[in-house]
Amino acid sequence: MKDNDLPNRLYLDDLRVGQEFTSGEHHLDAEQIIAFATEFDPQPFHLDPEAARDSFFQGLAASGWHTMAITMKLLVKSMPFAQGIIGAGGEISWPRPTRPGDILRAKSRIIAIRPSRSKPDRAMVQTHSLTLNQADEILQDFTANLLVFRKET
Amino acid sequence: MKDNDLPNRLYLDDLRVGQEFTSGEHHLDAEQIIAFATEFDPQPFHLDPEAARDSFFQGLAASGWHTMAITMKLLVKSMPFAQGIIGAGGEISWPRPTRPGDILRAKSRIIAIRPSRSKPDRAMVQTHSLTLNQADEILQDFTANLLVFRKET
Repeated sequence: MKDNDLPNRLYLDDLRVGQEFTSGEHHLDAEQIIAFATEFDPQPFHLDPEAARDSFFQGLAASGWHTMAITMKLLVKSMPFAQGIIGAGGEISWPRPTRPGDILRAKSRIIAIRPSRSKPDRAMVQTHSLTLNQADEILQDFTANLLVFRKET
Repeated sequence: MKDNDLPNRLYLDDLRVGQEFTSGEHHLDAEQIIAFATEFDPQPFHLDPEAARDSFFQGLAASGWHTMAITMKLLVKSMPFAQGIIGAGGEISWPRPTRPGDILRAKSRIIAIRPSRSKPDRAMVQTHSLTLNQADEILQDFTANLLVFRKET
């Protein structure tokens, strides 16, 4: 499968609360952490291992938005919603820093399906995604509100 | 000021509820949208103007995480917390898509300061940041929980 290919399979009627999705892996290194931070989150603890040592993080840590962006990449490949993953928003927290050498994967679960009252072709689907490292430590806890459509008939 | 320079000025004692921060601007184009999406959110409506026309977005739209990442860059330059912007998490929504040609800026406001009960040197500071375009349309609504420290004495 090419990176940009979407399996494009699941419609609203195919989803149920409790359904789970497990992603592949992303291997993170210091170079990626620094490249992302340089562009989007240029703070010393994301840019410079030396400066990071004396910071709150006590060592180089990825921007939380880098952890989220990698998670999104993993979700796009592992939650094959027919119309794509269309996020209205969500809630996010980072219980611990993401580090160079971490191997990230995402485990997701549908926790609610709320059909639209005004538009019968769609629902707001709430998913809960944990981003874990190779030691099964939780790096990110993310609850998303996603717009999912029924199959056109 | 160089891109990576942090003014590093405000400590917890310098902050108050209601305090506001206005960022500079970021000019977004299709090339940036496609580059970010190719790496982190490879879905047709973020990658291909042609395919995006027939999608929910009815035209090329930036990944929400791209809007957030750009917002973070704007916040790093406009909220000069002495120890940096250290996010524990937050809540995010995208009322409308971010488009090629949009000029983004962030307006932030401190909405709560909650001193830590166990660690007197710090507080959780809640900020509310709106990301606006050149027409003052709200592209993103973001409430963050940030760890802020007192000045060491």
